[in-house]
Amino acid sequence: MARLKLKLQLYCGDEIAMGPGKADLLEAIAREGSISAAARELGMSYRRAWLLVDTMNGCFREPLVEARPGGGSNAGAKLTAGGAAALAAFRALSAQVEGGASGADFEMLEKAIRKTPP
Amino acid sequence: MARLKLKLQLYCGDEIAMGPGKADLLEAIAREGSISAAARELGMSYRRAWLLVDTMNGCFREPLVEARPGGGSNAGAKLTAGGAAALAAFRALSAQVEGGASGADFEMLEKAIRKTPP
Repeated sequence: MARLKLKLQLYCGDEIAMGPGKADLLEAIAREGSISAAARELGMSYRRAWLLVDTMNGCFREPLVEARPGGGSNAGAKLTAGGAAALAAFRALSAQVEGGASGADFEMLEKAIRKTPP
Repeated sequence: MARLKLKLQLYCGDEIAMGPGKADLLEAIAREGSISAAARELGMSYRRAWLLVDTMNGCFREPLVEARPGGGSNAGAKLTAGGAAALAAFRALSAQVEGGASGADFEMLEKAIRKTPP
């Protein structure tokens, strides 16, 4: 049976304000407590992670990620309340959309597609 | 308000059997009557279009695209009945899934994201 993959992205002009990669990064920042540790965990450069955070913070009316206070040169990062809420809403919306991919059209495609290429 | 973009892909093992790009190619083949003319219309190389068709034909139990009979060296291509049905089902499923991206989580994100970056 065919496997369905759904990619949901929310745009701010031509920029992606939120999508699966950015949601994964927010989760890693919440878990790790810093952008650099989150980047390491996801196997991306610090520069790339920082740019993704910068895009999110610019696209949302309130920043999603902020520096943890008092860190000095070891300052970490954490999600704001708005960041945690946006992440939760994105995950819930993704699950809702995936749950809606059913019915006759999906079944027709699922039956017509092989499980693996011949 | 944020703009939502949804990308729906159906996998066959590690290969994408059907997605937005392949659906666009099927539509162009149906319109143009050949893979090379469809490739030109979409601004992709003939080689790339041919590979996408080859992947689709391998991933589906019945081929979606076949040579038009009697063409000789000018042989064109057309969708099979199964190809036209798969394309229609994919477009319908995509519209259904997009219509399902609403509700409180979507509204929360839509309000929190700027229309354009600052």
